[in-house]
Amino acid sequence: MSQIEIFKSALDEEIESYAYGTHPLELYEPIRYLMHLQGKRLRPMLTLLAAGMFTEDWKHALKPAHAVEVFHNFTLMHDDIMDNAPLRRGSPTVHAKWNTNTAILSGDVMLVQAYELFLNSPEGLLPKILKRFNRTAAEVCEGQQLDMNFETRQEVSIPEYIEMIRLKTSVLLGYSLELGAILGGAEDTSIRSLYEAGVNMGLGFQLKDDLLDVYGDPERFGKQVGGDILANKKTYLYLKALDKADEDTRQELLVHFGKPAADARAKVEAVTAIYNRLGIRDITEELIRSYFEKALKAIEGLPVEEDRKVHLLGFAEYLMNRDK
Amino acid sequence: MSQIEIFKSALDEEIESYAYGTHPLELYEPIRYLMHLQGKRLRPMLTLLAAGMFTEDWKHALKPAHAVEVFHNFTLMHDDIMDNAPLRRGSPTVHAKWNTNTAILSGDVMLVQAYELFLNSPEGLLPKILKRFNRTAAEVCEGQQLDMNFETRQEVSIPEYIEMIRLKTSVLLGYSLELGAILGGAEDTSIRSLYEAGVNMGLGFQLKDDLLDVYGDPERFGKQVGGDILANKKTYLYLKALDKADEDTRQELLVHFGKPAADARAKVEAVTAIYNRLGIRDITEELIRSYFEKALKAIEGLPVEEDRKVHLLGFAEYLMNRDK
Repeated sequence: MSQIEIFKSALDEEIESYAYGTHPLELYEPIRYLMHLQGKRLRPMLTLLAAGMFTEDWKHALKPAHAVEVFHNFTLMHDDIMDNAPLRRGSPTVHAKWNTNTAILSGDVMLVQAYELFLNSPEGLLPKILKRFNRTAAEVCEGQQLDMNFETRQEVSIPEYIEMIRLKTSVLLGYSLELGAILGGAEDTSIRSLYEAGVNMGLGFQLKDDLLDVYGDPERFGKQVGGDILANKKTYLYLKALDKADEDTRQELLVHFGKPAADARAKVEAVTAIYNRLGIRDITEELIRSYFEKALKAIEGLPVEEDRKVHLLGFAEYLMNRDK
Repeated sequence: MSQIEIFKSALDEEIESYAYGTHPLELYEPIRYLMHLQGKRLRPMLTLLAAGMFTEDWKHALKPAHAVEVFHNFTLMHDDIMDNAPLRRGSPTVHAKWNTNTAILSGDVMLVQAYELFLNSPEGLLPKILKRFNRTAAEVCEGQQLDMNFETRQEVSIPEYIEMIRLKTSVLLGYSLELGAILGGAEDTSIRSLYEAGVNMGLGFQLKDDLLDVYGDPERFGKQVGGDILANKKTYLYLKALDKADEDTRQELLVHFGKPAADARAKVEAVTAIYNRLGIRDITEELIRSYFEKALKAIEGLPVEEDRKVHLLGFAEYLMNRDK
């Protein structure tokens, strides 16, 4: 097995063998349901990859890595209520399968369970790990609030959008790497470099999501192509198009994004045609590449032997080049 | 100032000077709103009273005590959504004043803030404080889930009801005292005794709430008398009445609690008349007294000088005898 496969298999076993709680069943069953829907386990994988750069004993990072995954899934459970989302990873969301109250309360207990898993960190590291986690968790909530605010705002600038996805998505990837570095016993400068690498990876990751939503192969991506366009989401592609468009095209875009689609396919095609005309795909790909390159550079600069970096570098490249 | 007044004033200053966060405003304003609605501050008061029994330096317990109050208010913010409650302490609830999504997300960040405040505990005590807090927080969620389950269940036994209020309300009072004892440097046996004292106090406290809902002076209690009866809530008074009633009275009660009231005042009067006939008031008062007496006994048995116990004993008696 490759290093990645070893980590993935250890994570799967850790997560699948954990009960979270028993009674009442209504409270704990939704947690197991969501945790077993088999996401990418991207964040805990980053934690293990970072820990593995500094120590052979990456196994003691398993439960804190699991904590990050529980936190991430807690945010999904609550975000899905707020976004009124029917599906998550192709299955019914918790509030759709049970009800909103259950999704609120199960989510709450998940956040508590995340903290409980963090208690499996070495005692001397706990205050630092929790201090940085609390800051990150608050920032993720701030990002979600900004995302909701943007829905009803007329104007959103590109820097505001980047700041929103930094908070909502990227800081948790930064924290995942930072946590692994702390647990691996890294120096402060390496911890900070890995945090920055994770944030840049997260920005690239989210922009790639925006891009795949329009330009992904529907068979590979597993989501409806143009979902963001149909939901009138102010993504990077949309904001950049507004920015680059002449006045006529700008008005055309605003009309498309100002109302629900009469004909879904026609709307997606029309908006995609505008993006194509303005070269939005290339611009977005370039920006994604620049964020990932910053991340790769930060990893390459770490004061550890080269062969310790290859797994994380490979994983970052895989995220950069993913088509689903 | 009395000891209680000194604690109350220190708590008010601690809580009112704390910002929780700044940006975006929509996320943090509801936290300040709810925290400043001036509840009884019962739980952090218990923490300070317990700490003050073992140390002169009760001030280092202020921020952890604040953490408990933030956690308690987080549960109120989310419970009010689940219970569809329009008012809290006479003011609009957060989801009513803002909206449900804001109440979910502000509540989430409050739970994170509670953990952040706990980080102001002495480092050596942190794992123990958090371990016990996590257990308590999960139990409070379990209690809320049971409470919701009971709404739609036909039969609820009195032991099941007591277990539900133990989880939903009492364990947090137990934890509040336990936390103070830990921070005050108490021995494990004293820590456990104070936890038990707090749980018994909490059971007495919740049953007193059930009682005041029917027999409280509306001018003093500040809530609509008979609110639980109108909401068809399966309180201790109702369950005990079902238990004691002959078959005809039992059917009468079941009919009253099986449907919304056509005439609210008539319903409250009819149910109260049944309670009176069955002597439910005396039975409930007796049970409340027995829980508080267990609490007082546990406090009296602590291995500290008598004059260190008087403030907490006095506070417990005040809770036992409150009429609002």
